[in-house]
Amino acid sequence: MIIVMKGPATESDIQSVIDKIRHAGLTEHVSRGTERTIIGAVGDERSLSPEMFELMPGVERAMRVLKDYRIVARDVHPANTVVHVRGLAIGGPELQIFAGPAAVESAVQMDAAAAIVKQTGARLLCGGAFKPRTSPYAFQGLGMEGLELLRDSARGQGLPMVTELLDVRQLEAFLEYDVDVIQIGARNMQNIGLLKEVGRINKPVILKRGLSATLNEWLTAAEYIAAGGNHNIIFCERGIRSFEPSYRNTLDISAIPVLKRETHLPVIVDPCHSGGKAWMAPALAKASLAAGADGLLLEVHPEPASALCDGDQALSPDEFQQLMTELSSLAAALGRPLA
Amino acid sequence: MIIVMKGPATESDIQSVIDKIRHAGLTEHVSRGTERTIIGAVGDERSLSPEMFELMPGVERAMRVLKDYRIVARDVHPANTVVHVRGLAIGGPELQIFAGPAAVESAVQMDAAAAIVKQTGARLLCGGAFKPRTSPYAFQGLGMEGLELLRDSARGQGLPMVTELLDVRQLEAFLEYDVDVIQIGARNMQNIGLLKEVGRINKPVILKRGLSATLNEWLTAAEYIAAGGNHNIIFCERGIRSFEPSYRNTLDISAIPVLKRETHLPVIVDPCHSGGKAWMAPALAKASLAAGADGLLLEVHPEPASALCDGDQALSPDEFQQLMTELSSLAAALGRPLA
Amino acid sequence: MIIVMKGPATESDIQSVIDKIRHAGLTEHVSRGTERTIIGAVGDERSLSPEMFELMPGVERAMRVLKDYRIVARDVHPANTVVHVRGLAIGGPELQIFAGPAAVESAVQMDAAAAIVKQTGARLLCGGAFKPRTSPYAFQGLGMEGLELLRDSARGQGLPMVTELLDVRQLEAFLEYDVDVIQIGARNMQNIGLLKEVGRINKPVILKRGLSATLNEWLTAAEYIAAGGNHNIIFCERGIRSFEPSYRNTLDISAIPVLKRETHLPVIVDPCHSGGKAWMAPALAKASLAAGADGLLLEVHPEPASALCDGDQALSPDEFQQLMTELSSLAAALGRPLA
Amino acid sequence: MIIVMKGPATESDIQSVIDKIRHAGLTEHVSRGTERTIIGAVGDERSLSPEMFELMPGVERAMRVLKDYRIVARDVHPANTVVHVRGLAIGGPELQIFAGPAAVESAVQMDAAAAIVKQTGARLLCGGAFKPRTSPYAFQGLGMEGLELLRDSARGQGLPMVTELLDVRQLEAFLEYDVDVIQIGARNMQNIGLLKEVGRINKPVILKRGLSATLNEWLTAAEYIAAGGNHNIIFCERGIRSFEPSYRNTLDISAIPVLKRETHLPVIVDPCHSGGKAWMAPALAKASLAAGADGLLLEVHPEPASALCDGDQALSPDEFQQLMTELSSLAAALGRPLA
Repeated sequence: MIIVMKGPATESDIQSVIDKIRHAGLTEHVSRGTERTIIGAVGDERSLSPEMFELMPGVERAMRVLKDYRIVARDVHPANTVVHVRGLAIGGPELQIFAGPAAVESAVQMDAAAAIVKQTGARLLCGGAFKPRTSPYAFQGLGMEGLELLRDSARGQGLPMVTELLDVRQLEAFLEYDVDVIQIGARNMQNIGLLKEVGRINKPVILKRGLSATLNEWLTAAEYIAAGGNHNIIFCERGIRSFEPSYRNTLDISAIPVLKRETHLPVIVDPCHSGGKAWMAPALAKASLAAGADGLLLEVHPEPASALCDGDQALSPDEFQQLMTELSSLAAALGRPLA
Repeated sequence: MIIVMKGPATESDIQSVIDKIRHAGLTEHVSRGTERTIIGAVGDERSLSPEMFELMPGVERAMRVLKDYRIVARDVHPANTVVHVRGLAIGGPELQIFAGPAAVESAVQMDAAAAIVKQTGARLLCGGAFKPRTSPYAFQGLGMEGLELLRDSARGQGLPMVTELLDVRQLEAFLEYDVDVIQIGARNMQNIGLLKEVGRINKPVILKRGLSATLNEWLTAAEYIAAGGNHNIIFCERGIRSFEPSYRNTLDISAIPVLKRETHLPVIVDPCHSGGKAWMAPALAKASLAAGADGLLLEVHPEPASALCDGDQALSPDEFQQLMTELSSLAAALGRPLA
Repeated sequence: MIIVMKGPATESDIQSVIDKIRHAGLTEHVSRGTERTIIGAVGDERSLSPEMFELMPGVERAMRVLKDYRIVARDVHPANTVVHVRGLAIGGPELQIFAGPAAVESAVQMDAAAAIVKQTGARLLCGGAFKPRTSPYAFQGLGMEGLELLRDSARGQGLPMVTELLDVRQLEAFLEYDVDVIQIGARNMQNIGLLKEVGRINKPVILKRGLSATLNEWLTAAEYIAAGGNHNIIFCERGIRSFEPSYRNTLDISAIPVLKRETHLPVIVDPCHSGGKAWMAPALAKASLAAGADGLLLEVHPEPASALCDGDQALSPDEFQQLMTELSSLAAALGRPLA
Repeated sequence: MIIVMKGPATESDIQSVIDKIRHAGLTEHVSRGTERTIIGAVGDERSLSPEMFELMPGVERAMRVLKDYRIVARDVHPANTVVHVRGLAIGGPELQIFAGPAAVESAVQMDAAAAIVKQTGARLLCGGAFKPRTSPYAFQGLGMEGLELLRDSARGQGLPMVTELLDVRQLEAFLEYDVDVIQIGARNMQNIGLLKEVGRINKPVILKRGLSATLNEWLTAAEYIAAGGNHNIIFCERGIRSFEPSYRNTLDISAIPVLKRETHLPVIVDPCHSGGKAWMAPALAKASLAAGADGLLLEVHPEPASALCDGDQALSPDEFQQLMTELSSLAAALGRPLA
């Protein structure tokens, strides 16, 4: 902890800060400048908080030196963590594509989607059974039936299945259906109960970034999962909220190199949700890989125009095929083969 | 639904849009301008979505005409709704102050807080038993014990009790302890499971605004509660995320007049969380009432410097007393007595 | 300057930082913690920049201790500065209202506006002669003729005149027409040439906040004016850019108490531009005064529906009269009479 | 223009809107829905503004159908515009790299920079002579002397020169020194006087995006230049302001595909300013090309650690060389050779 005193702080103000540091079992280091006195607290700063000092007379501000996250930090685990899903490696040298429709609608739709995913070389099948919709009057997903349809199509093609967990009460069903990768959506990034629950199991978790979460908050949310014992965490950037009305969200491409530096865990990107328009997805998908992402989560729907949810952001089978071809040569140029 | 065609849209593009509108059971209204053709879909537009049209050739964009929320809209219920809590009226002519510490810490602390609240003329006692903390290593609240301490102090002073519900699994305990007002926090504004559950019961609910929720999203989240049958909803503005680093959040004062126009439900403000510093709270509290808020949620702690959570944003008893005096004369000038 | 070293920084990394500090003529203060070493640079830190250190091996980050602004800071000038305009005091105990139409359109319009302003007790007449419009095809103002009309109407009622300076080449005309208060608009808050020019003259300057300027950037922009010798600066908050589409801009009410603490200069608010709708202005105007603003800049137009510019945000004479009455009782309750 | 009436609008409200449309010389098209009446105004909508209608009783909102920009729109000019600079084509099939230091410091520095730029295959030499600094106490650039040093180094290597114009009063010197590409910086994106002046000359202009400018505002700012007769405009994305504190700005990668669709003019990206850290530049540079940018503006400094300005975001000669190699193979995979 560093405590910066105000210009006119008195000796007694300084002494009070020192007393508080010592009282917490740390030692102080005082540096008297020409305009400001700065006090460092040496020791385990987790017993201190900036608030404890910022309320004291003569204190201008107090700052933590250490970060809020530990287990997920690259500092303490310099090598990349590879998350394994039914034999696939996520976060290793190969790039991985997760793909499927936003919502599970029917057996026909899911079988068609699974076939496309399989045949283009994508490796994991996504599909939403429980849908978090902004409006209570919008389609909320097929629920358990959706989970079953997703499983059947995935198993039929030998693909791992990926789906979103909305509520702690659904977790049992997710385990029963043996969901391979559990997705925590943007709206639930700080749903503490949910984070703690998936921290207790041993399934890989995709943690999407909250719409206006800072990287620090995102990494700290992951720490909730990791602190429970589950280190199989995959970060997924999906666009942040900005002032720009031309797209649904603003893909934060800068988050990729910074996350890759801050954490040892894999980082993927969801370009379809981010842009909100299928025609934007190829540019954003390519940019994401070029920026260093370990994979992509793509929406593909056998018939986007008749989708029950988010149809305007889903790629058609032809568009998806075309994009996979482009990603493949891009991946080669980046030295990371598309699995 | 209004569909704006692109400049070079063909007759066949236009016809396809018309066919789609008719197919959904609505009728079209075509307006051919010099540069653009505009098509209106007349009928119940809830069977349509902008996406259905934006994917079609020749379409530039499609817009809903109606809003996503109904029950909470002032359009359909022009008079103010007054929410009643143990004889107190929220959203009526009188202004109401909710107050208490961020977290329940001990019986001594809660009794002291309840006494201050009672004696200064605030009318509802708040206190967090379950705390949603950014970091897994921070104090997470006393849980059930906190609920009990809050209840005892509230009942001791004859004050209604207000506390935050974090997880659907806690709801039973909330009912058992007879929590008078259930708070849904900013992180859970779009926790659909939680919204649906509190929609099924008959307790007043404070719905805090998500950190980057638009007013439309916030109103639509309230619609989830209302659609379940519970219309006792109180909106609480608590600051939004912006680029400005000088305060924890940016109080969106403009939201107050707009919400009061858009919905018939009460609107209160939480100035302490918003600014994140106790010294900012008086200015923000006064501004909120002047802008038309129906009440305030204030943090007061018997001893802010030793608070286990958010101490830097809590008012001391003296500061709270002083603020209540100022609010009282302000309220009089605004023609709305402080209850 | 505080330099935080990375966990695994070597002794040689630390020594290099020390060498750099000494080389710049300052002395170091090294604090070795259990997890991080922190180095303080003691002396005049303006010869250092964080960048100089952040590029060095083993350095995690470097932070300035001092602020970028000096002359405008309350630290160095604790008492309020009162800006005087033709006998009016801005920033003193009395609240001041600046009012007029967004754009000067005609003698008839300006005479009517000046009469309303005078008669309701507002004290300064505003009107735009040069208009900074987003679109090149929108009305750009009457230019010199507008300046003349504004002057004639202002002088006719004995009111000081306030108008926006867009371009350094207009300054001579502003001096010739003896403009009493020069406004620098949001788009020009960091137009360095303009800031330097108004720093050289002795006229009061209203410096509006840039749409996404932090308070630090705003204060530092004012420092450009102050550094030139002109300390007659009035800050004007006019809304910031946010993600919320319901209003033109988001009035940053929290900026008022923070600015009043950080600077000794007066702070006013422009509620009409901020909300972008006349019906929102009363709520925002009252909130601004309640939050501690020293005055308001209000738009009033004899006939808003026929205004050439921003008509939807201008108050009609009746609305303005009504608002002034409300502000007057509010001001009394706040203990600051409306001048 | 589309005018949406409120639910309870009366016949007389509707008639008033119709009258206003006819009075402006357009014709109306009325569409009566079950819940809302919608009125289209057919004809040249530039004589109308949404404000004219939004103030009328019974009107919910009014929206323009056409965009604010014309000349720069791809609608009216479907083929790509290629901007030519001394024989180089910007916006054609080849990608172009603009490079140099943030600030011109000395002949030695500029000669070294020019040599690096030339030898790595970048094609245009940048360097700031007039620097727009946030603080008045920071290095403001060498001014005229800087212009001279830049010219000498550029001409010495046969490279076109690119530099920022801060003030209309510098334009004459820019023409005298025959600056090849004039840059308008982010802070000046809406400096109308400057835009109009560069619209009157025939030099290529790089128009950087304002920190919180929407794409519509940016395109409309370019329209100011184009309306003056100068169509040699290059858009440069350089990061927007967001809530994320980990980087200086947030590179808006989504802007690239949208701009390429909306305008026929070239689009480049400045990854160094955006991230604010040299180590982030390679990831952002690659992402920008992958997203479809026509080129990059990169900062390279012979000795970043001793740079007078923005040293932490400049690449060293080795880093620059390495990045150029990587960009070259990426460009090949994208089918657009690096010139």
